[in-house]
Amino acid sequence: MLPVESISTSDYVGDLMLHHLSNIADRVQRVVKAMPSTCEMGEELCMGADGTPTLRIDRLAEDAILEYVNQEKLKWNILSEEAGYIDNGGDRTLVIDPIDGTYNAVIGIPFYSVSLALGSSTMSDVDMAYVRNVVTGDTYQAVKGEGAKLNGRKIHTRPLAKDMVLLIYMGCHASDDTLRCIKKARRTRSLGCSSLELALVAQGTADAFYLKSGQRERAIRVVDIAASALILREAGGDLCDLSGETLDMPFDLKVRSNFLAYGDQSVKGVLL
Amino acid sequence: MLPVESISTSDYVGDLMLHHLSNIADRVQRVVKAMPSTCEMGEELCMGADGTPTLRIDRLAEDAILEYVNQEKLKWNILSEEAGYIDNGGDRTLVIDPIDGTYNAVIGIPFYSVSLALGSSTMSDVDMAYVRNVVTGDTYQAVKGEGAKLNGRKIHTRPLAKDMVLLIYMGCHASDDTLRCIKKARRTRSLGCSSLELALVAQGTADAFYLKSGQRERAIRVVDIAASALILREAGGDLCDLSGETLDMPFDLKVRSNFLAYGDQSVKGVLL
Repeated sequence: MLPVESISTSDYVGDLMLHHLSNIADRVQRVVKAMPSTCEMGEELCMGADGTPTLRIDRLAEDAILEYVNQEKLKWNILSEEAGYIDNGGDRTLVIDPIDGTYNAVIGIPFYSVSLALGSSTMSDVDMAYVRNVVTGDTYQAVKGEGAKLNGRKIHTRPLAKDMVLLIYMGCHASDDTLRCIKKARRTRSLGCSSLELALVAQGTADAFYLKSGQRERAIRVVDIAASALILREAGGDLCDLSGETLDMPFDLKVRSNFLAYGDQSVKGVLL
Repeated sequence: MLPVESISTSDYVGDLMLHHLSNIADRVQRVVKAMPSTCEMGEELCMGADGTPTLRIDRLAEDAILEYVNQEKLKWNILSEEAGYIDNGGDRTLVIDPIDGTYNAVIGIPFYSVSLALGSSTMSDVDMAYVRNVVTGDTYQAVKGEGAKLNGRKIHTRPLAKDMVLLIYMGCHASDDTLRCIKKARRTRSLGCSSLELALVAQGTADAFYLKSGQRERAIRVVDIAASALILREAGGDLCDLSGETLDMPFDLKVRSNFLAYGDQSVKGVLL
């Protein structure tokens, strides 16, 4: 059952919303598959609302989503990486990253997603989440209180074993703590798509995702993880800031945070 | 034209060999796609010739390759990660990694390959290379002296720009140099499949791949990179050891090396 305070007052309404989110992901997949080359995907068009350049692939994916919401007359406000906040007079907000892992798409790493979350004003009140790997079509979804699924099957995080699998943010702004964390893991990957990296923790094949940037501009935004945070929590894991407090983020593109996402809370003792 | 000392004395022979390599990659793809779950892929069967456990996915992929070579009565010796060296009395050796990026396959990261190289006794005399991304089907191939191709189209490395894209090995045995290198790049990924990471450098979307392990057992083996090294060199790049000397490796599973692969040789001045 959905909690009383959530918008979904019946399974029917919940199913209808998931149906819309699935249709939106279908449209994004079609738009991306129609692009002839990574070169075209990576063309810089202008500055996005988040202060980073908008690439063609981001713009086309976002346009496809906005068009769908308009066509279907959905009373959802929208918070998006590129367009910023769009007030449609609704009491629900669709938080989107049209393409999470844009740079992967542009350089030819087949690991990027569309990320969709429905909530009111903060990450903690998101009650419906949908993340699709645009390349493989693998689909993660969660409804608050009802668990998380990968391609329709329930997923769960795993207990921490000796051989930790760590996913981590890197780049010129990675902090010195990065190497300390890497040395504690048996295997480490840096995959450049936080929504799918959190999904790997949710499905119990990785133990943690760690992001600590020495530069505020590279820390995470709510659009990146609003959906995958619910998926991870419904699968049995959680996210915290680097002082160990439960992570919450308002629906605000200006807010950024470093964080740790984990399947088993004993990860906190190892990495923080 | 193929160089005189290579086995291919005519385009016909070269085309026939590439046809065989393509058939082998098809078989590996079919075997992997028929596996019902990552859990089954990851079952440990026994110790491989390289001293690491053989997982079911590795074994099935290798069996498919050996079966093809036998069926077609190809007079190729074989050097493989799992089976070791098989002397078929030929003067050519097929150097294979049946699945490069096994662990990616097992944990659900869609980035792993089959890697096939034909040569005589060392990496430097490989004259035919074939690497296929098993998930997407993207195919890289090279014939010595004839350039490198991705899905049939010529590829080239790129000149080093300000914003370096670095691919790097990580894990508990990563050296302290790892962080130094990360901080010099604009973007860094650690993708866990060296053959495809070298291919990204060859296609000019990444600038370098750097591997320095503090533990000999985690450095690279010839089976991992024999094919992608030729692809990278034919695309305009090169590989060197960490003293800057051109990298060569004998067809011997016991030999391991740290190395730098780059598209533009000015990368050496930045990272070494």
